[in-house]
Amino acid sequence: MTEPVPIMSVSRESQAGRTVAGRVFALLNAFSQERPAMRLIELAAVTGMPVSTVHRITAELVELGALKKQRDGVYRIGLRLWELGSLCPAPRTLRDVSLPFMQDLYETTAENVHLAVLEGDEVLYVERVWGRRSVDVVSRVGGRSPLHATGVGKILLAHASRELQTAVLEAGLKRYTPHTIVLPGVLMKSLREARDTGIARCTEELSLGTASVAAPIFGPDRRVVAALSVVSHTVTRPRSLAAVEPALRLATLSISRELAKGYDGIGQAGVVPLRPQ
Amino acid sequence: MTEPVPIMSVSRESQAGRTVAGRVFALLNAFSQERPAMRLIELAAVTGMPVSTVHRITAELVELGALKKQRDGVYRIGLRLWELGSLCPAPRTLRDVSLPFMQDLYETTAENVHLAVLEGDEVLYVERVWGRRSVDVVSRVGGRSPLHATGVGKILLAHASRELQTAVLEAGLKRYTPHTIVLPGVLMKSLREARDTGIARCTEELSLGTASVAAPIFGPDRRVVAALSVVSHTVTRPRSLAAVEPALRLATLSISRELAKGYDGIGQAGVVPLRPQ
Repeated sequence: MTEPVPIMSVSRESQAGRTVAGRVFALLNAFSQERPAMRLIELAAVTGMPVSTVHRITAELVELGALKKQRDGVYRIGLRLWELGSLCPAPRTLRDVSLPFMQDLYETTAENVHLAVLEGDEVLYVERVWGRRSVDVVSRVGGRSPLHATGVGKILLAHASRELQTAVLEAGLKRYTPHTIVLPGVLMKSLREARDTGIARCTEELSLGTASVAAPIFGPDRRVVAALSVVSHTVTRPRSLAAVEPALRLATLSISRELAKGYDGIGQAGVVPLRPQ
Repeated sequence: MTEPVPIMSVSRESQAGRTVAGRVFALLNAFSQERPAMRLIELAAVTGMPVSTVHRITAELVELGALKKQRDGVYRIGLRLWELGSLCPAPRTLRDVSLPFMQDLYETTAENVHLAVLEGDEVLYVERVWGRRSVDVVSRVGGRSPLHATGVGKILLAHASRELQTAVLEAGLKRYTPHTIVLPGVLMKSLREARDTGIARCTEELSLGTASVAAPIFGPDRRVVAALSVVSHTVTRPRSLAAVEPALRLATLSISRELAKGYDGIGQAGVVPLRPQ
């Protein structure tokens, strides 16, 4: 994602000054994976709010623990906001249910294991299990990736509403590597394939040297609520990820079966919305 | 914790109506592990705000993705707040650095592995690794526990400011089981022991049937920034946790050494405050 704030936050930004919460979140939404730390002047620039207003609200947010001000005057997201966020049922429930199986998958494959959901028109990583036996990858929990250039993204898009699929295609498929799928027809074919086979493959489509296989996780209502993937390195791990697919399928089936037992949140707030809220 | 909102939020609550952010967070702070889902009327009761005000602000927060309103009219924390919270450097950095070693510790012991920090006058769990080979425990990521009745709590309190130690003792040591340490002198002795040996043990002091051993994790400035623990079941896992201690020590030393390399956030915003902000 290249924007300083998520796409669906733009409408929120426009609320700045209109509503009480709007002003507060225009400021909080200025923080992102790409811009996790900012000074007052940068916050004012990103939010388009007067420095005096930014100064007043950030002081309040620091007092509340929502932001933390470093000695050097740089602001970051505070521990209190992390704590509140951990109450969100979707990632919490998915994580609690999935992590043991993700452990097993890591122990079996010694590769990175990612759990992702659809948020707006992007992939949002809610959990990641890896170790020093696995190769390093860029993705991190709370991070985002494009739908059309990742294994988890293809799974989530393949099972998303026709409406979202059209929106993604019409927005244009950004090229990240020479292997990125940029032709709508080719992407739709690979989405059909992902739906039919239950597996999505992605080889050096987002970054050179990285490959992944992904499979869907179903909620109690049989809707796809998340995607699980195994990510490896095409150079240091030449062996094909195909060997990992049976274990990946097994893990997603186990997680889906656990979710079907109906965990707190899932089936209600726990089902991740297919459209931005 | 029995209060509907964290202790240190009381001062925030009192800000309700006083400041813009204060009103918004008086509402968000109403949500907790014990009360993750509420209706308008409950939110009004917990915050002491007029239903009309609660109605207006919750509507704004839902629009912003900070809250999610279920079909049944129940409100929960939204995915956007989880995403913002994941930008908090302390838990993110600690987690990113610690998880691989926590994996290894789980693979070695097949027991629950917990990573906790000091937040206000309580233990805050920022990460947990477990699997179907380990026993089930109540603690969860984002959850809290008392300092005097947990292994991680004893480690964090042992290395906390004299000021906080005094405050905890003066607040009174709540009894959770017949084995809970409720005598100030006995607690101070066990804190000295934890400082001297680098290990804190806790056997059925918070809940019957559960035992844990914990060790400190040091930041670049040699201050204790977190505690790592292995939690087991005294009944189904009769073998002593003493056997686990060398592996636990090794893991905390490895994590501390990694942190010493200086990760983004740690030593600055990453150092968890010893007092509520």
